[in-house]
Formats: sequence, C-alpha cells, structure tokens
Amino acid sequence: MTDDSWLKSSIMAKRGLAKGHAGRRHELTIEKQGSFHYVYGPYAKPALTIDPGDVVVVETEDAFGGVITSEKDSPTAKLKFPFLNPQCGPIAVNGIGKGHCLAVHILAVETRGAQPAGKTCIIPEFGGLVGTASTALLNPPLPERVRVMHVDKDGVRWSDKITLPYQPFIGTIGVSPEIEAISSLQPDYHGGNMDLPDVAPGAILYFPVHVNDGFLYLGDCHAAQGDGELSGVAIEQRATVTMQIDVIKDWSFAWPRLETREFVMTIGSARPLEDAARIAYRELVRWMSADYGFDEIDAYMLLSQAGRMRLGNMVDPKYTMGASILKKYLTS
Amino acid sequence: MTDDSWLKSSIMAKRGLAKGHAGRRHELTIEKQGSFHYVYGPYAKPALTIDPGDVVVVETEDAFGGVITSEKDSPTAKLKFPFLNPQCGPIAVNGIGKGHCLAVHILAVETRGAQPAGKTCIIPEFGGLVGTASTALLNPPLPERVRVMHVDKDGVRWSDKITLPYQPFIGTIGVSPEIEAISSLQPDYHGGNMDLPDVAPGAILYFPVHVNDGFLYLGDCHAAQGDGELSGVAIEQRATVTMQIDVIKDWSFAWPRLETREFVMTIGSARPLEDAARIAYRELVRWMSADYGFDEIDAYMLLSQAGRMRLGNMVDPKYTMGASILKKYLTS
Amino acid sequence: MTDDSWLKSSIMAKRGLAKGHAGRRHELTIEKQGSFHYVYGPYAKPALTIDPGDVVVVETEDAFGGVITSEKDSPTAKLKFPFLNPQCGPIAVNGIGKGHCLAVHILAVETRGAQPAGKTCIIPEFGGLVGTASTALLNPPLPERVRVMHVDKDGVRWSDKITLPYQPFIGTIGVSPEIEAISSLQPDYHGGNMDLPDVAPGAILYFPVHVNDGFLYLGDCHAAQGDGELSGVAIEQRATVTMQIDVIKDWSFAWPRLETREFVMTIGSARPLEDAARIAYRELVRWMSADYGFDEIDAYMLLSQAGRMRLGNMVDPKYTMGASILKKYLTS
Amino acid sequence: MTDDSWLKSSIMAKRGLAKGHAGRRHELTIEKQGSFHYVYGPYAKPALTIDPGDVVVVETEDAFGGVITSEKDSPTAKLKFPFLNPQCGPIAVNGIGKGHCLAVHILAVETRGAQPAGKTCIIPEFGGLVGTASTALLNPPLPERVRVMHVDKDGVRWSDKITLPYQPFIGTIGVSPEIEAISSLQPDYHGGNMDLPDVAPGAILYFPVHVNDGFLYLGDCHAAQGDGELSGVAIEQRATVTMQIDVIKDWSFAWPRLETREFVMTIGSARPLEDAARIAYRELVRWMSADYGFDEIDAYMLLSQAGRMRLGNMVDPKYTMGASILKKYLTS
Repeated sequence: MTDDSWLKSSIMAKRGLAKGHAGRRHELTIEKQGSFHYVYGPYAKPALTIDPGDVVVVETEDAFGGVITSEKDSPTAKLKFPFLNPQCGPIAVNGIGKGHCLAVHILAVETRGAQPAGKTCIIPEFGGLVGTASTALLNPPLPERVRVMHVDKDGVRWSDKITLPYQPFIGTIGVSPEIEAISSLQPDYHGGNMDLPDVAPGAILYFPVHVNDGFLYLGDCHAAQGDGELSGVAIEQRATVTMQIDVIKDWSFAWPRLETREFVMTIGSARPLEDAARIAYRELVRWMSADYGFDEIDAYMLLSQAGRMRLGNMVDPKYTMGASILKKYLTS
Repeated sequence: MTDDSWLKSSIMAKRGLAKGHAGRRHELTIEKQGSFHYVYGPYAKPALTIDPGDVVVVETEDAFGGVITSEKDSPTAKLKFPFLNPQCGPIAVNGIGKGHCLAVHILAVETRGAQPAGKTCIIPEFGGLVGTASTALLNPPLPERVRVMHVDKDGVRWSDKITLPYQPFIGTIGVSPEIEAISSLQPDYHGGNMDLPDVAPGAILYFPVHVNDGFLYLGDCHAAQGDGELSGVAIEQRATVTMQIDVIKDWSFAWPRLETREFVMTIGSARPLEDAARIAYRELVRWMSADYGFDEIDAYMLLSQAGRMRLGNMVDPKYTMGASILKKYLTS
Repeated sequence: MTDDSWLKSSIMAKRGLAKGHAGRRHELTIEKQGSFHYVYGPYAKPALTIDPGDVVVVETEDAFGGVITSEKDSPTAKLKFPFLNPQCGPIAVNGIGKGHCLAVHILAVETRGAQPAGKTCIIPEFGGLVGTASTALLNPPLPERVRVMHVDKDGVRWSDKITLPYQPFIGTIGVSPEIEAISSLQPDYHGGNMDLPDVAPGAILYFPVHVNDGFLYLGDCHAAQGDGELSGVAIEQRATVTMQIDVIKDWSFAWPRLETREFVMTIGSARPLEDAARIAYRELVRWMSADYGFDEIDAYMLLSQAGRMRLGNMVDPKYTMGASILKKYLTS
Repeated sequence: MTDDSWLKSSIMAKRGLAKGHAGRRHELTIEKQGSFHYVYGPYAKPALTIDPGDVVVVETEDAFGGVITSEKDSPTAKLKFPFLNPQCGPIAVNGIGKGHCLAVHILAVETRGAQPAGKTCIIPEFGGLVGTASTALLNPPLPERVRVMHVDKDGVRWSDKITLPYQPFIGTIGVSPEIEAISSLQPDYHGGNMDLPDVAPGAILYFPVHVNDGFLYLGDCHAAQGDGELSGVAIEQRATVTMQIDVIKDWSFAWPRLETREFVMTIGSARPLEDAARIAYRELVRWMSADYGFDEIDAYMLLSQAGRMRLGNMVDPKYTMGASILKKYLTS
C-alpha cells in the first residue's frame, strides 16, 4: 500500500476543477469501444464523454492488436502496417478546450486476459540496434523471434531463471492535435507512443489541450520495459487501466508533463535523441521559471547539477526522454 | 525553349495509362479552391476530380497565406500556427488506389499576383542556423526581418546589386497518407513540404499512392531557393502551376521519386540529416536493383562513385535530400 | 560504511593479477605531477610507474585549471582553449599492453583545497541548451555567470535554500590511444571526458589497453552533476582520488566497462546521442554473449525489458551514455 | 586547357606572401617520405621544409597502403586498423605560425603506378548504408567485395558498359592541430579526411594554422567519387600531386576554406550531418560578414536563396559538407 497523502498537494488537486475529489465512474470496455483508432486526431467520434474529476476504467488491447499469441507466430505475417498499436478512445471531457490542460492520474494498470499474457518479439527492420525504415541500411535483418510468458502482479516470468518485477505503465497515451492525425506509433507534443516507464500507476500526467473536449486516447500497456525499449517491443499485454481525469483551466505549455510524489518531469520526443533531451530540459527550465520563481539561467545551472533524465524509447518514429527534478529543490 | 523529346522515353510516357498523351485541361483557381488545407490527409473532400493524363492549372497561395506584404510586417504577429503553408487540392484522380503510382509532370510554375511578388523573412525560432522548437535552446532569438522584391521570369531582384535567376519550383506537393493527416509544414514518405529545388518545371514526380483517388495536394511555390532553405524561408510567391497527371498501375515503392532528362532521383525526409540521405540512397539502390538489373551491392558501389546528393531543406520538421544518378549509367 | 564484501566476487578480484590484494601505495601530488596534460596519447612520459595491484593517491586540478576563483571571474577571459581540463598522469602500469585490460577500483574522491571549493559557470557557446562550435548557430550567446560554493562530504551548498548531496565522481579518466592524442575535453573508446556520474567511489572501471604500460590519465573531479551535465559544467572541484589499479590479461573489448555491486555497465560516446546509446547497448549485448552465456538475440530481448541507460554528458565533443543490467539477471 | 586568368584575382594571389609567383620546386617521393603517418599532429618530424610560394610534387600512397591489389583480396584480412590511410608529410613551411593561413593551390592530381590503378571495395561495418562502429547495430554485415579497374586521365573503366569521367581530388589533406594527433581517417577543423570532391585541381584551399611551420599532411587521392562516398570507399589510387603552397599572414578562422574561379566555399565536418552543414554555413556567413561587407542576417538570408551545399562524405568518423556561394553575388 502506497502513501497517497501527497496527492492533496499535487498540482492536479490544487488547480484542477475537481479539487482532487473523484466524480462518477465510467467503464470503457472492449465491447463499448468497438473499433480501435490508429491515429491521434480530431476526426473521430468520442467513445465516451465524461466530466472533469470522473474516474474511467478502460480495457486496452495490446500493441499487436492481439494477433501474436504463440512463439510460432511470425510478426511479419501477422502485423499489418499502419494498423498497429490500436488505441481506445477518444474520451471527450466536457468543458475543456484549447489553452487548458488535461490531467490524468493513473490509478492502476492491471494485466487482462488469458495466460501467457505477456508477449514480446523481434520485428525485422524495427528496433534500436538494427537498420530501420529511417536509419535505412542494406544489412540483412535479424531473424524474427517471439516470446510469450506468464505475467501477473507478482512478476514477469522471463525464463525459468529470470523473473522481472511487474512494473506496468501506459506505453501510448495523449490528446488530439488540432488538425493533424498522428500515427499511434509516434510520440510527439501531444503525447502518443512515448513508451516512457514513468507513465505508471501513481503518476499524474498533464497534457496541453488542442481541441474542444480534449479527446484523450490510450493503449499499448506494458508489464515491464527497459530504458529505451531496445528491440522496439516491451512486455506487451492487454490491460485494464484505471485513471482519474481532471481539467486545469488556463494552463498552457508545449509538451507533456508528469508529476509524482518526489519529482516533476517534462517529456520531449524528437530525433536525433539529443533534441528529445533538449526539448525536455528546456521545458523544465521554462516550468521552473514560470511556476517556481527561478531565473532561467539559474534553473539551467541547477539542472546541470540536479537534473535527471530518463530514456523512454529510442525506437519509435521519434525518440522520447523525460527530464525531471526532485520537488524538494524547487525553491529558488 | 527546352528540348522535350526525352519525354517520349520517360517512365511516365512508357508506363502511364495516358502513354504521354495530354487529356482534358482543368483549372483550379483560388476561387474554386475555396478554403485551403493545412494537413495532407484523407479527411478532406476533393476540390477537383480528373482522369489520368489530364492537365491541371492550379493557382497557389504563398506559404504565408498572403499575409506578409510589406517589409514592416512582423512574421510573429501575422503567422498563426498551425495554419501555415496553405495547400490546394486534394485533386482526386479516377482509377488510382493503394499500390499504384501517381505521376506528375510539372510543365510550368509562373509568378502570380502583384509586385513585389517575392517575399522572404526571418522567423524567430525557425531556420537552419538558430535554435528551434526541436533543437530547443535557451539562446535569444534573431530579430525578425522581412524582404519583399520584384520577381518575374527574368529574375529575382534581391537588391540593387544582386539579381538571382528565376528558378521556380513547387515547395510542397504530395499525396494523402492512408490514415494520417500530416501537417503541410512537414515532408515525409507522402511528399509534402520537401522544399527540394529539383521539383521544378520539366521534372516528373512519382508518388506511391495510399488512398483511393490518390488525393494530390500542392502549394508553397518558390521563385528561388538555396540548398537547405537555410533561414527556413525561400523567395515565397503566389504561383500558377501547370502539370500533367497520370497513373502507373502496380508500381509500388516507399518514397517519392523524380525523373528528368538526365537523371533519376529518390527523395528521403528524416532527422537527423544522415537518415534522409540514407533513405534516399537506399531507395535508389532498390530502384536500380528492381528496374535496371543491378545487384544491390553493385548498385551501392556504383553510387559511391557516381551518386549525387541534393540538399532540399534542413529546416522543416524533417529534412529532405534527393539522391540521383545519371541515366546514362543505368546499365548494369 | 558500505559493505564491500561483493568485491571478492568482482571481475577485478577474480581475473586481475593481484587477485584483489592491495599492493604498494603511491602518491601523485600536484608537485610530483609538474605540468598537466591536455591530450590522452602516447607522446608523454609517465608521471608515475606502478605494479598491478598498487594503490595510487592522485591530487587532481579542477577542469578550469584553478583559474576560476570568484563569481566576478569571466570564463571567457580566463579559459584558454585548448589548455582546458588538465589531466594527471600518465600512470604507467608494468606488464600491461595491447589486448589486455586495465582495471581501476575507485576508493575515494575527496574535495581538496580552500573553500569555497565548488565552482560552476555558464560558458558562452558551450552547453546542452545553447548553440555551440558544432551545433553552429547565429543566435546571441547566453550571458556568462559564475557560482562558487562550499563543498564538503556533507553536501554542496548550492544556495541558502538548496543543499545537494555530495556525490563525487571522476569526470575524465582513461587510457592512451595507440597513435592518436585525443583532447582531454573529448570522451571516446579510450574513456576520457565521459562525465558519467557512475564513475564514482565503489565502482570498478575496465579499460581496453592500446599501448605498453597502459598510460592512465585522470582529472576533472565533480562534487555533483545532473544527468547530461546540462550547462557543460558540473560542480567542479580539486580532489584527492584514491584508487587501486590492476591488470586483467587477455581481456579485450572495444569500449570502457564498469562494475558495481549491483550491475555491470558499458559506456559509449558518440554523436548523435542515439549512437552513444547504440554503442553502449551493443557492447552490453556482446559482453552478455561472450561472458554470461546469452545468445545475442536473447540478450537484446532481455535488455529491452531490463536494461537501464544513464545519460552522462550531452555537451562534450562526443556525448556519453552508460547501459547497464543488474547482475542478478545475468543468467541465461 | 583551362583559363587560369582568374588566379591573379584569387585571395591567394592578392594576400599571399608570394603574390601568386611560383617559387622553388620540390619533390617528395615515396622514397624520400620513408614511413607514412596515420595521425595529423605536431609529434612528427617534417619530411620536407619549403618557403612560401614554393611548388611541391608529392607521391601519395593509396588509402589501403597499397595492400589491395586483386579482386580476390579480403579487405578484412589485409587492412590493419589504425594503420589505414597513410599520409605524406608533414611539410613544414617557413615563417608560418598560429593565427596565419596556409594556402594550397592544387595544380594536378595524376594517377601513379601500374594498372589496374583504381581500387574500390566493400569493408564490413564501414560505409553509409550499413551498421558501423558508431551506428552500432546487430545486423549481419554485408559481404566483402573488391573491384579493381583501369584508370587514366580519360576515365575510370567501371565496367564494360560504364566509364566514369576522371575527376580526381585529394581525399585527405590538412594541417597539424596544436596539441591533438587526429587519426588520418577523421576530418575536422584541421582538414584531414574530408573526402570532398571540390578539393580538386584548380581549387585553392585555405587552412587555419595551429603550429609553427604549419605541418601540411596529405594522401588518399581519388580518381572519382560520388557525393557522400557512400560505401566509404572511392576509386582509390596512388597519385602524383602537384601544388603551390603559400602563406597569408594574420588571416584566422575556424574551419577550412576553398576558392575556385566561380565560388568560395567553407567546409564543416561533424555528426550528425546537419551539424556539418551548420558549421559550413555559419562559417560562410561569418566570411561574408568579415570580408565582403554583409550584415550577418543579410548573409544568412542571401544564402537561403543562393547558397549551395556539397556532401563530401557521410561515412568517416565525422561527416563533411561544403557550403558555397558564387563570387558574383558577393557584393552586399
């Protein structure tokens, strides 16, 4: 049992419309969702409409659309681009629009479905240590390989000898751009396929909103993942996600933000990887300057000594990094 | 007067449905276009529908949407992201679909509208030698600056002392992705904002098609531009574009291609810049292998000695390079 | 007091010539060092010669060569490129040569000299969020700024309100290349200016050796540093470094490695940043394959779920990342 | 026969100590050279000492050190890193020192030695479309392949069907750094392995000098090369290089420059490739500002419309690009 007392002093509780109080509870089941989405955009109809403060329980499909079920499956044969990484939603939030902030407090990410519930694989021309569609090379690809494994809250059974801790998170979550429809395989300023392990139960996400009703999408839950999601594939699982959603009026910024008990984080996605880091750190400098009283140069200097950087993915169309600083230092 | 006799042996003439013969002539005026588009996607309705072989004359708006008219204008005040780089179209082409190729022979790009017809400017946090939204830095921005100048077919009057040749091309042109709606500011596998000076009168472009009727968009004509479009802005102009459009059945590839009398070119867009070059060169290796009888390694070795690379832009959300080889070497 | 019992099972203890036993103790004082070095290369004479297993205590100068002493100092006026980041050594180790491995167990890094012992600053055209000599831009530079502060083992007094923990490490350490003389500002396959906080007391470093006697150099100790060393400057200090040095015969690899009680790490330095990450992860795959019985694809898949990546610097001529995996998973 | 009348108005003729007049003629034969160099640095002894204005004829070895002679040779077996790309020199130039400029007018690059004089090959883990030591991947390498061919001034006999024009240039040329010794495989601020086809007969190179007597090195002549030197290997040849060398006092800048009859060029080398382009263009902005009366922003804007960019190599430890502008526009 974690101590949630910090939540009362979170930005969401202090500045959100619901003031930290939970509203109604909604369920967005696979059946209710119907067809999935493969882009983050404004051209879809809401699968669910809620009020600020409401709690939503969402059943997500895995990133493969459920088609990889056995170690004998061929990813190349089963996966049909661009219909990968199916997303639930969009969830419309009443009363939110451009210039406001959508807050998402992740309460739980639980494994769903039959065992072996965890899947991972090698997909040719995709991943961090192989030639890809962008890093376009002539080398022969790696062979395909699929691993399926038992996953529950006690761990991920990688092999007879190795059990990894169950450290689930939401691989893909975000809001609709204003006019673009961005592939669910890509992370960007709207969130999306960030594959950042900090997007986990206990954290609060803050997204800048670009369209009326915000249009929250999510999917692609992982049971475990290393920094960088090196092969391009984590321990993929179907999941049940529980989250509280709120609205902060008139809080506008450029890239997704995240808060935990201990730290605040800004998330950047770009190529090359240093641009993801630059975006994340510059956003953090600007946040420290806007909300915590730092002069920008002082913030820059303090982050040089106390900033932390988490590598999310180095495999998606843009790479993702999260820059953070402990809240205890946020006093200028 | 250029010698167009090579056109009879072009890929378009040999493999296109129209066999090089011009069909009906259409006009897509500013009035007929009505509202412009700011994304390349399948969610719009056609502004014009044509048959393979038809000729289309399109009036394009400049990349600023016409709002920069004086050297006293402030780009920051006038330009409203994401409603930049307005696009004409989509032009629907009967009988084309996924797996086919859309061919565009550019016949003319003529300056349109009142003088001074050419505009260029410095936009803060945009360009190749400044910190940007992606290469996110803390340095102060450059000052804004606008230049307007007389442009006609005889030249671009840069200053009293300097007249640049009129070398017009289409900065942004491409087809709709299957499900994405990609910003008109971005180049990618669908074409888009490539800002590559080879996309000029006399050249034939080949696009892989992703949706029924192809959905061709275009805009953003330039009167002149250096390699890289260094400041992010060329000599922007309103233009009248004349082009013949055709369809090649069952010709499928990954990135835009281009043909002139002398060479064939493949176009890649990515970051970092070496990935754009890798995409372009790998596509050229594959083309030489598929259509000209080269073994892939031999093609790779020949391009090492005879390949040419043109830098399109190093300023847009993805950078663009075009790899080419003289046709006379395309004998294995 | 840390528990050092793991050291008996370290690679250094098991494979090193000294079998974990400490040899003679040497001191390399500032006086004994005489002039410092600004390149890592084979063209210098040893400042000290030792046997495998010996313990060495080295007095290091700070990265500024001690010339920044007051918040009124101008870095631009005081710092004279390329005579920056002075290095102690080279330390020659008897009996070592090309193809062997030099092991360095860091025992202590203690602040040396008068208070305020910690210095940091903003240097124009240097750092992670500004245009630089390589990311060459036209923006105006940031203003210079110097901070000096009290540093001791109890903490770094950043300001009246903020005290950072004293987490010292060696910013620059490595061995001589075979024929190159590499600037002490640059990290590479030889080690050098990696600015990676894991290079700290308690860790054991392993370097591939390129010349007879190995030629170990070091300097540039930091009292604290954030991930990425964002401004290009950590809390710089003069220090006294204590380390045991040993030799592992016939252990050859491409990039520096590191071992702690809990994990093993490989260190890559390159631009763009993803290449540093790729180098580090590929080296770890190869290590897991060579020494721990993993098939390369299995190692790649396991790191995708359990690998960790630390950002060292994103400011030096090459950027540095360290990829690691917990030892408890190193069973195939 | 080319018209050399422009040389009288070249920077070298106008500002060089010899005022365009040829001094004594020297020969640096293979025999006189003795052992070659594999680093550019100050730690070698001059192979030849000359006066400003003197003409030097140098016999260069090919980049393989002459060990690849047959299509049956294995590059992996024959090439021994780091002893690749042997360099002639250093040539000491009396009266030159830090802060001055070394000018090299290339008069001829002639094929030397027995036929087949041209060699090229595929080297595993080296090249622009494969995983490498830096872009470190797990894909299997390409197979080795060697091609040897007849080369003379009339052309490069690529195959029975393809003859490429003989367009020779010096792949590697530059001056000594102040304290570094940089691998002859790497280009940087000192010149070195730029692999830029503009470094050809007729051009004048300008290098910033870092040590007394300048210390000019050169080697690695190519009979032909495509933009990017895609496979990492051009048509390598032994050559006889003729050049006139002069000194311009008190002309100091950061990166190599080049002049031809038609244009001036600045050369940048870095990774990622956009940083090479940024360096080259920023240097050109600064040159236009310092010597041709342009305001920096105006220079930036003009290069956006009239700048040209040549890709040298995208395969060496740093990539090289040359930015140029026609001299006729250099009037502000």
